[in-house]
Formats: sequence, C-alpha cells, structure tokens
Amino acid sequence: MGKSYSNISMAIIRRLPKYYEYLKQLVDKDIDRISSKKLSTMIGFTPSQIRQDLNSFGGFGQQGYGYNVEVLYKEIGRILGLDQAYSIVVVGAGSLGQGIVNHINFQNYGFDLKALFDTNPKSIGKNIRGVSILHVDELQVFISKNHIDIGVICMPKEFAQDTANKLVGSGVSAIWNFSPLDIHVPEGIIIENICLNNGLFILAYLLNNSK
Amino acid sequence: MGKSYSNISMAIIRRLPKYYEYLKQLVDKDIDRISSKKLSTMIGFTPSQIRQDLNSFGGFGQQGYGYNVEVLYKEIGRILGLDQAYSIVVVGAGSLGQGIVNHINFQNYGFDLKALFDTNPKSIGKNIRGVSILHVDELQVFISKNHIDIGVICMPKEFAQDTANKLVGSGVSAIWNFSPLDIHVPEGIIIENICLNNGLFILAYLLNNSK
Repeated sequence: MGKSYSNISMAIIRRLPKYYEYLKQLVDKDIDRISSKKLSTMIGFTPSQIRQDLNSFGGFGQQGYGYNVEVLYKEIGRILGLDQAYSIVVVGAGSLGQGIVNHINFQNYGFDLKALFDTNPKSIGKNIRGVSILHVDELQVFISKNHIDIGVICMPKEFAQDTANKLVGSGVSAIWNFSPLDIHVPEGIIIENICLNNGLFILAYLLNNSK
Repeated sequence: MGKSYSNISMAIIRRLPKYYEYLKQLVDKDIDRISSKKLSTMIGFTPSQIRQDLNSFGGFGQQGYGYNVEVLYKEIGRILGLDQAYSIVVVGAGSLGQGIVNHINFQNYGFDLKALFDTNPKSIGKNIRGVSILHVDELQVFISKNHIDIGVICMPKEFAQDTANKLVGSGVSAIWNFSPLDIHVPEGIIIENICLNNGLFILAYLLNNSK
C-alpha cells in the first residue's frame, strides 16, 4: 500500500498483536463487523482505548456501524508486517523448542521455519512438523547459505549468548530469545527477550498480596 | 519480616523478576556486591532507573560500595513472595506443557508442581520430572482434594476457557494462561495471560520497519 505507519507509537504497536489475534477469530467465524464495545468485552481494553488505538492509523470505525472486521484485520496485519514472509530457524530442539514450534504454528502467519538445531544425537535427523533437526555445528553454514531473518533461541541459558553470537555473525537480523537471561547483540540487530519465569513470579506476588 | 510493600507500584513490581534472575546469577557466582552501573550493563535498565527502583523499597545501596547482592536478592524474593510455597497443576501435557515444565523447573523457585493433566491416552500415567500426568476428567476432584494455588493452562485455545472454569470452580486462586486468547475469570481470581505469538508479531513489525 506504500502507507507509512511511522507515526504510530510503540505502545500502540505492542497492543496490535492482541487485536490481530481476536480479529482473526472473528474473521474465521465470518463476523463482518464489530463495535468497539464488543471488542472491548473480548480483548479487555476499554472502548475508548480501542477507538483511540484504531484511530491512530486510520479510523475504520463508523458511528452506529462499528468496525469492518476484515478490513481492520488486514490493515493491522499490514502494519505488523504480517503480509510479508520471514524465514526462521529455532536453535534448541528440546521440549521447549518443540513445544514452541508445535504451539505457534509459524507457517500460519507467514513465518517460514527452515530448520531446527540441537546437539542431542537422539534428536538430530528427526522432523518436527516436517522440518528437520540439524546439528548445531551446521548452524553458521546453514544461515550463510539460506537467507534467515529470525533466530529463535531455546537453548539452556549457558549457551544462549554464544548461540546469539553465531546467529548474528552468520547474518540473522532478529533474535527471539527464550533463555531466562537477556542477550546482548550489536546495534541494529533486533531482539525480543521473553522470560517465562517472570509471569510466574508476578503470580506469586499477586497471590501473596491478595490474601 | 512483616514489612509492607504495598507502596511499591505495579510497574516496579513487574521489573523485579528481572532483577531477581540476574541477582540469582551473581549469588550463584559468589559475587557479594555490585554497583548500579554494573547491574545496568547486565540488565539493560539505566543506573538511575535501578537506583530509583531499588530505593522504592529500602535503598540497599551505599555510595561507593554498591549493593549487597545476597541481601538484595533475598529482599526482592520476599517482595515477590518467593519465600512462600505455592502448589501448581499444569493442564495440557502436550509439547508446550512439557516444554514449560522442563524449562522453568518450578521446584527451584518454591513452586510445587503436583500434577499434569491431559486427554491423550498415550500421555496419561507417564511422568515428567517425576510428576504424574493424569486424565483431565480427574482435574476437579484432584484440586478439591489437594490445595492448589495456581493452574497453568497449556491446552489448545478452544479448551482454554472451559479449563479455566473448571480450575476456578474447584478452588484455584490464580491462572497462568498460555492459550493465545485471553481467558475471563470471576473477580478476585488472579490471571496472567501470556501470548507467545505476540513477541513474534513484534519482531515482524521491527524487521519490517528497520529495513
């Protein structure tokens, strides 16, 4: 479309995946329009927050009509860049790596999972959803030969930084890190750290402070 | 200690798990003190953010000395409620549920994993890290008989809300939901939704907007 979305704040961008997931549900159910009030009940943001967010990139809503679900879904997908294809490798094919690959279903969202990598001889040569598990020693050559956008790190934390260095050194542009420690990458490399423990610790806090 | 931490904002609380993980690394390495500057390099928050955060619940730092690692680690653990024990069940023992159980190592942090539940006859009766996988039909009786604080939902999204209803109906106080759709729970029940896809969509956005 050639539209620029650079005026949208990162705070709004970080809420868009949630809109996208819910709108996908509506599209799948052939629902063609929805009010900000109904969206609010589904998503948990206030109706005014929703109107503000969606106005920031176009204002698809019409008073008394609501939002056109398909138009909004496609537009948010475009803003997030989900109309493009990205190639991915997952490093660490233990239970977490396999769990993520099975759970997320990358292909569904235009992410092309090219290979998994591991060190465990029992895993190497096997397939997860039709994608091969290769030895970590092949990682750098594989990335150099194939254009890979995103490397997902599901290795134990003691190998996480080294894995990141290899991924970046061979040419990936972005890292999604599931190791509990943050990884340091050179400027210009995109990184999203996700620490699963954090949510559990917050639950402990909330449990302990609501008694 | 009987100390009240109710004056600490939720924004700070949500940063504490990260401090806690890094301080644990330092404790494990027998490092007994650290400056806010060094902590900053590790964690990625600015030194002034760190001083502000840690001042908000006591000010353990001393000019020219830094922070006493063990004292700070224990205090943050106490604030988060990690000095207490919590009992947990995981519903959904597919690859994601197993990945999470293997990755997080609940026992290490005072979380007592009591059972996993699934519907797959191939999984039922097996053990993950010494914890049995039971049939989902037994979930409600199990929770009623055992005191369970937290239910972790790793079921496909179409079963997530029903699982939440069963967990809450049988008496759990908190839910950690890995299904991509948010779950609705009655007031007073604690919920943390974690949508793994979100991070991937943000990576797509950043990749698409940094070219």
